[in-house]
Amino acid sequence: MAELVAEAARLDADDPLAGYVGRFADHGPGVVAYLDGNSLGRPLAGTAAALAGFTGGAWATRLIQGWTDDWLTWPQRLGDALAAAALGAAPGQVVVGDSTTVLLYKLCRAAADARPGRRELVLDSDNFPTDRYVLEGVAAERGLRLRWIEADPLTGVSPAQVAAAVGEDTALVLLSQVAYRSSFIADVPAITALAHGAGAMVMWDLCHAAGSVPVELDAWGVDLAVGCGYKYLNGGPGAPAFAYVRAEHQARLRQPIWGWMGRAEPFEMAAGYEPAAGMLRFLSGTPPILAMVPLWANVELLAEAGIAAVRAKSTRLTRFTIELVDAWLAELGVRVASPREDELRGGHVTIRRADFGAVNDALWARGVLTDFRAPDGIRIGLAPLSTSFAEVARAGQVMRAVMAG
Amino acid sequence: MAELVAEAARLDADDPLAGYVGRFADHGPGVVAYLDGNSLGRPLAGTAAALAGFTGGAWATRLIQGWTDDWLTWPQRLGDALAAAALGAAPGQVVVGDSTTVLLYKLCRAAADARPGRRELVLDSDNFPTDRYVLEGVAAERGLRLRWIEADPLTGVSPAQVAAAVGEDTALVLLSQVAYRSSFIADVPAITALAHGAGAMVMWDLCHAAGSVPVELDAWGVDLAVGCGYKYLNGGPGAPAFAYVRAEHQARLRQPIWGWMGRAEPFEMAAGYEPAAGMLRFLSGTPPILAMVPLWANVELLAEAGIAAVRAKSTRLTRFTIELVDAWLAELGVRVASPREDELRGGHVTIRRADFGAVNDALWARGVLTDFRAPDGIRIGLAPLSTSFAEVARAGQVMRAVMAG
Repeated sequence: MAELVAEAARLDADDPLAGYVGRFADHGPGVVAYLDGNSLGRPLAGTAAALAGFTGGAWATRLIQGWTDDWLTWPQRLGDALAAAALGAAPGQVVVGDSTTVLLYKLCRAAADARPGRRELVLDSDNFPTDRYVLEGVAAERGLRLRWIEADPLTGVSPAQVAAAVGEDTALVLLSQVAYRSSFIADVPAITALAHGAGAMVMWDLCHAAGSVPVELDAWGVDLAVGCGYKYLNGGPGAPAFAYVRAEHQARLRQPIWGWMGRAEPFEMAAGYEPAAGMLRFLSGTPPILAMVPLWANVELLAEAGIAAVRAKSTRLTRFTIELVDAWLAELGVRVASPREDELRGGHVTIRRADFGAVNDALWARGVLTDFRAPDGIRIGLAPLSTSFAEVARAGQVMRAVMAG
Repeated sequence: MAELVAEAARLDADDPLAGYVGRFADHGPGVVAYLDGNSLGRPLAGTAAALAGFTGGAWATRLIQGWTDDWLTWPQRLGDALAAAALGAAPGQVVVGDSTTVLLYKLCRAAADARPGRRELVLDSDNFPTDRYVLEGVAAERGLRLRWIEADPLTGVSPAQVAAAVGEDTALVLLSQVAYRSSFIADVPAITALAHGAGAMVMWDLCHAAGSVPVELDAWGVDLAVGCGYKYLNGGPGAPAFAYVRAEHQARLRQPIWGWMGRAEPFEMAAGYEPAAGMLRFLSGTPPILAMVPLWANVELLAEAGIAAVRAKSTRLTRFTIELVDAWLAELGVRVASPREDELRGGHVTIRRADFGAVNDALWARGVLTDFRAPDGIRIGLAPLSTSFAEVARAGQVMRAVMAG
């Protein structure tokens, strides 16, 4: 085992982003290794002070004036900053607010309602549950059909499957860029082009991608996207999510939750809803300003580190994790359930064994925080900016002890 | 003017809740008087530390374990605490999460969809904009008619108007308990009974009521209610909102945003959406845990002070404000646009004069933070726990100087 421990030390020494690990808040002695940053990211060391500073500062002293000072601009300004740092999107196409689920609903409804002649929504059976449930709900209420792609649990959804599923009746295709279980990276540009060839719109769920793998929404021709603020973006439990709507579609799309913040001239408080211009029409209620505070610094951190460097480290982390599983755990009956090809693998690695429900509990009891996914998967999440190679090696030693036990 | 200044001092000396004012965070020297707690409540002195403590504590050190520690129970537990402190509702009927607008949408859709034979939604033309817009959207997508009650801007919606508006085609009546402009308190029990007599459901917007005037949802037979966390509940800008669904209705109502947190057994991540039992089915996405932190202490504060005492102080504050307007501002052409009868008036007082748009700017420049409402209203918001009578007197002197100027 000494060999991989030494390799971890070498990898940390060579890691150009190693300094970022120390910029996160101390997790204390109860955590031996945190391998679930893909489910809930860690706070930055400065996040507690940022929240306290906002509360004692703008909230306590500017009070209602905060809205006109600048809070009203936060959903778009934070969205633009995120778009530039991590989404490959020009300004004016991303807003922050609501939960991922609510944004999924609003954009799926907008897309479906924009094409009343098309009666089918295409999705995959292995997508994250909330995506599937939202689309089931939209189909039920709009009298649409769902067309399910049976995704391979290891390799995900292929362009060929999408080509076979879409047609002149397809209104919308909803898929995830990074599969939440296998970590497989879908071929977003190819699938988007195929769906467009059939005249369908495409929406990508970026929850397990944003802040971890490069995303080029504008260049890839993506129509719609949503993603979550509390995973690789470290926004805190239940952080606001984000939505992208390609500029050329904004004027003709209308989302169903007509609230004052999505109306043209909201403070006129006038009769009759008229959607605002641009991305603001995808807002509904009062934006969650306080809850956006942790996201600002994380988006800046990501911009500073650069998504290409983040991805490079992420790839090294997942590759090292697979080496370690092969060397230490394979002989214990553990198998890798994520792609072995670097370019097909996102920021986490899933491993499987029949007893992993109990094993995950035992790992938690030893301070190694991984993520169990029924029936038999453990996800090893490797948030690139907050995870060291030494941490992975430390976790691997505990895993070997627990899994051999 | 000395007489009312002395009266303010006497009222503060006699105020059993006077000690609560000091429990709020210092607003600094830039604020002479904060009279907009009905629009954005002030943080408690402990809120900055609570947010920092949560961030450095449960979030940083418990990390993903926080969800199973207790975060998953927060939407209902915080809802139950709020229900007991301020809503007159037994446990299991309130959840916290989403924005007011999103919750309005979910419950209005649930109510409308539960009665497909009834084609009309009743609302009033003076309700808060987001309520009107949401109902317009629901009507548009479900092919329903809107029936508008022309509310008197001073006296609000009367039971007689509701009686005339509801009938066998009414699915839902949506009104506000406290009118956001005039502060008029609607007769909730009488109006609810009238709507029930016609077989309709009733939903009350409690945004300007919760934490200020007594609410007895269970006793009054209310079907549905929503309200906001950032006004008298001091949850911070864009704080999560709350929803109430009467226990007997929960099993047969379904809301349209089918997300994983509203599903039975969400962590099975299984195929097919089945709504959870009870109030959990009204959740959609991951609950905004971090953003709920400020609300906890405020709900406890409210429970400690007692809503009856809060209402008693609120009434004294609004009565004193009207005295002051009569004595100091009436001769400057200012008139009171809120009810003069204590029992008909909520926690704020609206005054009117043609030039109040410019006057409000001048007040802000002098550190008196009131709220302009087009075309000619200034709302004087008097959050009972954070506002002193001396503060009102101080504001009154600035108002007189500015309005005479």
